[in-house]
Amino acid sequence: MGNLCECLGNFFGRQKNTNVRVSLPAVCFIWQIAMIILFGIFIRYDEESDVKKWLEHKKSANISSNIENDFYFRYPSFQDVHVMIFVGFGFLMTFLKRYSFSGVGFNFLIAAFGLQWALLMQGWFHSLDPVTGTISIGIESLINADFCCAGSLIAMGALLGKVSPVQLMVVTLFGVTLFAVEEYIILDLLHCRDAGGSMVIHAFGGYYGLAISWVLYRPKLHQSKSLNGSVYHSDMFAMIGTLFLWMFWPSFNSAITDHGDGQPRAAINTYLALASSVLTAVAISSLSQKKGKLDMVHIQNATLAGGVAMGTAAEFMITPYGSLIVGFCCGIISTFGYLFVTPFLEKTLKLQDTCGIHNLHAVPGMLGGFVGAIVAAFANEDVYGKEGLKHVFDFEGDFANRTPGTQGGFQAAGTCVAIAFGIVGGGVVGLILRFPIWGDPADDNCFDDDVYWEVPEEEEIIPPVLEYNNHMIHKHQDISESNFSVEQS
Amino acid sequence: MGNLCECLGNFFGRQKNTNVRVSLPAVCFIWQIAMIILFGIFIRYDEESDVKKWLEHKKSANISSNIENDFYFRYPSFQDVHVMIFVGFGFLMTFLKRYSFSGVGFNFLIAAFGLQWALLMQGWFHSLDPVTGTISIGIESLINADFCCAGSLIAMGALLGKVSPVQLMVVTLFGVTLFAVEEYIILDLLHCRDAGGSMVIHAFGGYYGLAISWVLYRPKLHQSKSLNGSVYHSDMFAMIGTLFLWMFWPSFNSAITDHGDGQPRAAINTYLALASSVLTAVAISSLSQKKGKLDMVHIQNATLAGGVAMGTAAEFMITPYGSLIVGFCCGIISTFGYLFVTPFLEKTLKLQDTCGIHNLHAVPGMLGGFVGAIVAAFANEDVYGKEGLKHVFDFEGDFANRTPGTQGGFQAAGTCVAIAFGIVGGGVVGLILRFPIWGDPADDNCFDDDVYWEVPEEEEIIPPVLEYNNHMIHKHQDISESNFSVEQS
Amino acid sequence: MGNLCECLGNFFGRQKNTNVRVSLPAVCFIWQIAMIILFGIFIRYDEESDVKKWLEHKKSANISSNIENDFYFRYPSFQDVHVMIFVGFGFLMTFLKRYSFSGVGFNFLIAAFGLQWALLMQGWFHSLDPVTGTISIGIESLINADFCCAGSLIAMGALLGKVSPVQLMVVTLFGVTLFAVEEYIILDLLHCRDAGGSMVIHAFGGYYGLAISWVLYRPKLHQSKSLNGSVYHSDMFAMIGTLFLWMFWPSFNSAITDHGDGQPRAAINTYLALASSVLTAVAISSLSQKKGKLDMVHIQNATLAGGVAMGTAAEFMITPYGSLIVGFCCGIISTFGYLFVTPFLEKTLKLQDTCGIHNLHAVPGMLGGFVGAIVAAFANEDVYGKEGLKHVFDFEGDFANRTPGTQGGFQAAGTCVAIAFGIVGGGVVGLILRFPIWGDPADDNCFDDDVYWEVPEEEEIIPPVLEYNNHMIHKHQDISESNFSVEQS
Repeated sequence: MGNLCECLGNFFGRQKNTNVRVSLPAVCFIWQIAMIILFGIFIRYDEESDVKKWLEHKKSANISSNIENDFYFRYPSFQDVHVMIFVGFGFLMTFLKRYSFSGVGFNFLIAAFGLQWALLMQGWFHSLDPVTGTISIGIESLINADFCCAGSLIAMGALLGKVSPVQLMVVTLFGVTLFAVEEYIILDLLHCRDAGGSMVIHAFGGYYGLAISWVLYRPKLHQSKSLNGSVYHSDMFAMIGTLFLWMFWPSFNSAITDHGDGQPRAAINTYLALASSVLTAVAISSLSQKKGKLDMVHIQNATLAGGVAMGTAAEFMITPYGSLIVGFCCGIISTFGYLFVTPFLEKTLKLQDTCGIHNLHAVPGMLGGFVGAIVAAFANEDVYGKEGLKHVFDFEGDFANRTPGTQGGFQAAGTCVAIAFGIVGGGVVGLILRFPIWGDPADDNCFDDDVYWEVPEEEEIIPPVLEYNNHMIHKHQDISESNFSVEQS
Repeated sequence: MGNLCECLGNFFGRQKNTNVRVSLPAVCFIWQIAMIILFGIFIRYDEESDVKKWLEHKKSANISSNIENDFYFRYPSFQDVHVMIFVGFGFLMTFLKRYSFSGVGFNFLIAAFGLQWALLMQGWFHSLDPVTGTISIGIESLINADFCCAGSLIAMGALLGKVSPVQLMVVTLFGVTLFAVEEYIILDLLHCRDAGGSMVIHAFGGYYGLAISWVLYRPKLHQSKSLNGSVYHSDMFAMIGTLFLWMFWPSFNSAITDHGDGQPRAAINTYLALASSVLTAVAISSLSQKKGKLDMVHIQNATLAGGVAMGTAAEFMITPYGSLIVGFCCGIISTFGYLFVTPFLEKTLKLQDTCGIHNLHAVPGMLGGFVGAIVAAFANEDVYGKEGLKHVFDFEGDFANRTPGTQGGFQAAGTCVAIAFGIVGGGVVGLILRFPIWGDPADDNCFDDDVYWEVPEEEEIIPPVLEYNNHMIHKHQDISESNFSVEQS
Repeated sequence: MGNLCECLGNFFGRQKNTNVRVSLPAVCFIWQIAMIILFGIFIRYDEESDVKKWLEHKKSANISSNIENDFYFRYPSFQDVHVMIFVGFGFLMTFLKRYSFSGVGFNFLIAAFGLQWALLMQGWFHSLDPVTGTISIGIESLINADFCCAGSLIAMGALLGKVSPVQLMVVTLFGVTLFAVEEYIILDLLHCRDAGGSMVIHAFGGYYGLAISWVLYRPKLHQSKSLNGSVYHSDMFAMIGTLFLWMFWPSFNSAITDHGDGQPRAAINTYLALASSVLTAVAISSLSQKKGKLDMVHIQNATLAGGVAMGTAAEFMITPYGSLIVGFCCGIISTFGYLFVTPFLEKTLKLQDTCGIHNLHAVPGMLGGFVGAIVAAFANEDVYGKEGLKHVFDFEGDFANRTPGTQGGFQAAGTCVAIAFGIVGGGVVGLILRFPIWGDPADDNCFDDDVYWEVPEEEEIIPPVLEYNNHMIHKHQDISESNFSVEQS
């Protein structure tokens, strides 16, 4: 027994080896080949992107014009979401002074893998044709696949700088899988509405990342403290991420809502909530400093809380001022989180959360879920109309008899399911990632691109300083010489 | 009397205090709460984004498909405009070496506030329902709100580096208010057409900012001269702003033009004028330097002049080569402005214009207004068709008898109204901003993020230099020691 | 004869003069004026952007709604393509440490000229009205003009850092001209399909640039070696270019495909191929380094190979897994190219290819052409349906009797035509560019913005270092003084 312990101790405590020359190519190749095989077996074009099916569908459904193809309803939103996933999330994670390559590069890698796996997982759960055994994909599938990746990219935020790309691939593999399952439970079984994913994306992704990070706690992380911060220009790169997320969040929340009134309403609500978040995030940030100075961390993150919190309610009739109130509160809560909760969690719960996803995704996502529940519970025919109520909440088929009140209950239950999946799933994945085979860096080697990237030598020649230095050398030599002469004399 | 003077002198001349810890949070909180209350009273969804109204509207207007919802006509343009406001204007103002946080951050703050206030102000003037006393908002309202912010963001360009965020909020509060009034006069009373806002946005915003800057003249601004310039990477960040403005300007000018032919025509005209501006801006920039070297200031700004100048005429039948001519001239004029007019204005008129908005917005906007007037005056049934003339110029209702010639006159009058509002409004706002309560920086403290931001310590480790320095230290010590020994000996 | 040789030798070998103060403004002005004149003669609005024609067209074609205007089918894709041309290509070429201004600035200049010239050239070849002698332009023309520029921008990649802006204008003038001719041969005479331009854009542009670069071989380029590399932040700027290209490539390949099923299919196929490229590019990049470290050059470029290679086949029924396979292979081939082929070409063929367009455009473009040929050859009625086959391959009019097999042959022939035009055209243009009148830099002066730009002095004040230096100065002085005293004593 003692031997076993020792043996395990040696195994888990052995010198960190960050060489991923075998594991990273192996994971990329094998998983990509698996994708090709599974796509070959399962994935087909849907009736809006297959030429034969579309021509038949147009006839049978009596569609008069090609503009009725779902592509024209959703493609602009899809592209906005795509930008959020790759530029938004990617650049948001470039704020560290020497981890920008990894921030944007690993985000790129895992999203490119995740969206393929998501098409399969979501396809199996939501649109597997029982007759042909195939999955039909269209533009809406691509949006959903991007959404599904977002869960894992959020989790990456908590782990930023502390894990290897191979570990991130594992996080994504399980993250996408868990996502598809919890999404199936929440949207299909509980019949919740969650167009912008407050529950299924943000609450799940946030708690998933936090749970993994908790399991992977590094007691000596302070050894990498000097690199766990930003420089002037890395903060500017992060602002690119922030702004593209902020600007396109209305598209995120409206991308898969109902055609017609649903999309504009979701866009308007999100637009307003985000604007409101900016003002309260700035206010709290300024209040928190002796001289009223603003902190880039808050501007980069807490301004987005309103978008996260509107993920569920955006498509409901929350009213414009309701949206402003949600943004108002979440801007405050999120900034407070960065000021007090993250340091507190690190100190007491041993929870290291590099990007503060607790304050940007986990808590606002959870709140967004409950806001959605409340708004749903108070829905009524006066506001929605009889037909509208059915239309917005899909009270059809098995769910024809549901009332708004019941729906509110189910929405709240859905939020809890998302959080539970995040915490439990993250815990298990964290344990898997503790195996010492994944190439993660040592505690004194975190937040450093140099571990996984060929970083260019920084000979950024700064002419005046250099000249000045040269000048000094000359003076120096003069001194040395004169000095020498003194010695000689 | 003497006492009063002295007292006032002391009041206005007292030591600058840049602490905004009370004022900034107060402004953000109070104004945001005011927005929530006013939105609660006035703002409702319009018939295209309210589920009940949309279902009724579809029936009553006999709309066959959801794709007829205005959302699908305008949303892609809206998102492009949104990018221009937040990334375009924001990053264009990051060119200063140590004011990038403020450039992009304050732009973010005031646009987020401005768009809310704009929805209210524009709503009251343009779409207040006399029966219910409410304002209905939809996607077009969001575009107009973004446009309305643009006026104040332009003004910010003249003030960049010299004012506090609280002052910028005040600039925006009044800017949006003035904008709504002048827009009402120009578009509703004078019945001008100004889809891309040469008059209402650029001429107004430009002169508004210049007037404020003139009143806030800082005689000792040269004390901050060392920070009033760019570095290599800050110029690159500014190019992000330039390019997103340049690329999306066709969307800006076509965002709220007529469905059908109006939007593509406005996009094509703007696209051509912008392309033409680039070539002449490059030509003049190269001509102006001894060795033909290009100046980033011109490339970042004057290349955009064609888009500004097409703001009014883009939706008219100005012809493709007409658009090229407008761009050709404005590229030249704008670059000349940067070379000669801005220095002249600073020297003789005491007008400090950090971003040169005089050359990018004020003058091209004014010219755009007059170009629009000329093109309108020469409109005729041969080119537009009888129905088309009515359609493009809205010669309907009270204005059914207007001729193109008259319309041209009104367009020219509209341009003058915009300029007058800018100058007079800016003068008054400038006086308000001279009160020494707003936390603006001292003359030797301008263009510095450090005043309002927690700026990260710049320990961007440059390995070879550092090593070299260490090396020097050692040599140094050797010297000191040897030196010491000499002294001893 | 000997005299002539000597004379020519002197002429071609004379001291490089990089002053473009005459040539650059002259080229910009004269060519822009020529554009205005030619636009005045030839270019008109088409029936979807001319108010009179649109109102008539709506009536005659019985169009019920303005949403049927082509603008609403293509404008979102157009804007995405526009971003790729200006931000995508522009920022991709900012990776060099001191050539970022030129990378993004010259790209801006030549694309702004190229798109005007492309509207004329493509108009003359594709849509010159034989009756009126005019060319009608609409949104699709703008997309095609942007595409046409892409060919020359690709060529710029091979020449980056080694040529003057005047030479780039010449490259664009001829590049656009050659493009229009080869496109006419490939699309109209051979009746190939090439919606995303694997052949006409990438294979042509790639070989065009390589041929020019080969003719302009600089044997002493190693003298500029110190500037032919990246620094940390220039690599980050390049990632902006990479990501915007990567994200919007689905729009690139679907922008001008058929309304209805064609656009979503092209978008889906491209989306999948790109995702697949990322994984294999990462895998090979990691494999190639001793410690499995990733190389930014591969991530910035090879990840895009899947999009290039899907340019032809994206609109066909290549199947989702077929797209993944194409991306899989091209990610590998492209990364191998950067590792082995580019160094090999430089050593043996004397081919200097700054951005490695051989691996990103030439080879994947050629492969994409052949992939398209194969997919076309295997098309059949089972998959496409009878009507669909006609629809996708335009088997109408003169080409009504073509079979998929024949079509495949023509597609392959088209690829060869594109390559031939690139190599021969590039050779001739290269010879023209060897005349010593264009202001190109000397071999020891390449890759340096300082030649063509007013570069800001880099006094980026780094506080701690500065303080430290000041400290040193003081210490220094102490020494000097003490030293002096020693000497005195």
